[in-house]
Amino acid sequence: MRRSIVMILVFDVNETLLDLSGLDDVFGDVFSLPDADGRSVREDWFTELLHQALVTTVTGPFVDFGTLAKSAMRVTAFRQNHELSEAHVEAVMQAVRTLPPHEDVVPALDRLAEASIPLVALSNGTPDALDAQLRNAGLTDRFDRIVSAQASGRLKPAAEPYLWVAEHLGVEPDELWMVAAHAWDTTGALRAGLRAAFVRRPGKHIAPVDSKPDVAGDTLVDVAEQLANVAE
Amino acid sequence: MRRSIVMILVFDVNETLLDLSGLDDVFGDVFSLPDADGRSVREDWFTELLHQALVTTVTGPFVDFGTLAKSAMRVTAFRQNHELSEAHVEAVMQAVRTLPPHEDVVPALDRLAEASIPLVALSNGTPDALDAQLRNAGLTDRFDRIVSAQASGRLKPAAEPYLWVAEHLGVEPDELWMVAAHAWDTTGALRAGLRAAFVRRPGKHIAPVDSKPDVAGDTLVDVAEQLANVAE
Repeated sequence: MRRSIVMILVFDVNETLLDLSGLDDVFGDVFSLPDADGRSVREDWFTELLHQALVTTVTGPFVDFGTLAKSAMRVTAFRQNHELSEAHVEAVMQAVRTLPPHEDVVPALDRLAEASIPLVALSNGTPDALDAQLRNAGLTDRFDRIVSAQASGRLKPAAEPYLWVAEHLGVEPDELWMVAAHAWDTTGALRAGLRAAFVRRPGKHIAPVDSKPDVAGDTLVDVAEQLANVAE
Repeated sequence: MRRSIVMILVFDVNETLLDLSGLDDVFGDVFSLPDADGRSVREDWFTELLHQALVTTVTGPFVDFGTLAKSAMRVTAFRQNHELSEAHVEAVMQAVRTLPPHEDVVPALDRLAEASIPLVALSNGTPDALDAQLRNAGLTDRFDRIVSAQASGRLKPAAEPYLWVAEHLGVEPDELWMVAAHAWDTTGALRAGLRAAFVRRPGKHIAPVDSKPDVAGDTLVDVAEQLANVAE
């Protein structure tokens, strides 16, 4: 077995790079919330989206993440006893494409560029939505490759998307480090043979049954500094 | 292919038969909630438990549902910024074993007994916890078989537990009807080749991406009446 001499970082996008709280206003509007604060409904929607993505990944057949996102909107609306028009759903889908990066993202990516570490983005989002997200956030040029999990025929945390990236870059799985703010994502990557770095954003935790990441930090800058040290 | 002439009902247990709101007081106590109303924390815990079960089912290896339940308690405690002792965790685990049935359960099971339909219980719970739950709820004698998904080496909604029941009863998958208050459970059953009946308990909905159940109703009595009519 050859020794890993390459380090390539594979970044999750939603919540890890992009700030979903950018959706709170549009959720407040489309759900007609009195104080226009859609945070709690937006969090419920994203939890439901991940749930539906996992159920689909377990039971098949493949459904793209955009369709799952809309389906989760419908369930969230049922639970809120709120009637959603097609225009409301589209308003949220459009807002997903224009999310801002978390404030620690640009400094962290600067640090990693300085260390000359190749960077990949790997999201469950559809290719079209993913490209729009990174372009609108001004991050496209930061990445050497931008990959939708959809290319592999399954969504994270199934092994296929992680191994698809390794195969298409011609590297061993353990030369890739998944960087994510989701324990399900780092766990999936670790079980597929990658290494992983966890960003402990507020409310995010590694569960006792999850695989332990190689690196963890409270901000992406903290994580980037640790990863740059590993690379040097 | 032989025509289905048998109908056997396979019941999910937690939330479908047993009322998880029976845990709200113990959650209120162990999380030191001022009004002792643990409903919202209990709901977060169960959502987290299902999430961890799904992630484990996608990424492997198998982890039993009791271990997942405790792991989900730890994550819920992190999120609540609350320190949980081992005794707190055990208090919840004990309370899970003494949940009361929903009030529509006994009348529904009476109706199905009258129609002489064989009944099976199929839960993700460990064999030990499942047996205790049904015994304490006074429901053990209502079922012809009590099966933990663990016997199949995977948890619902993976196909294995549903097909394990069919194989061990010596029937075709479509002779089994999964009865559940969870869309992920009826969806998994339908995709494994079973039929399914959905109990639309408050807050529970079939998502657009889910498989459509053959039968649905607002209460278990309503669902039982429809199933008894199918059998006759």
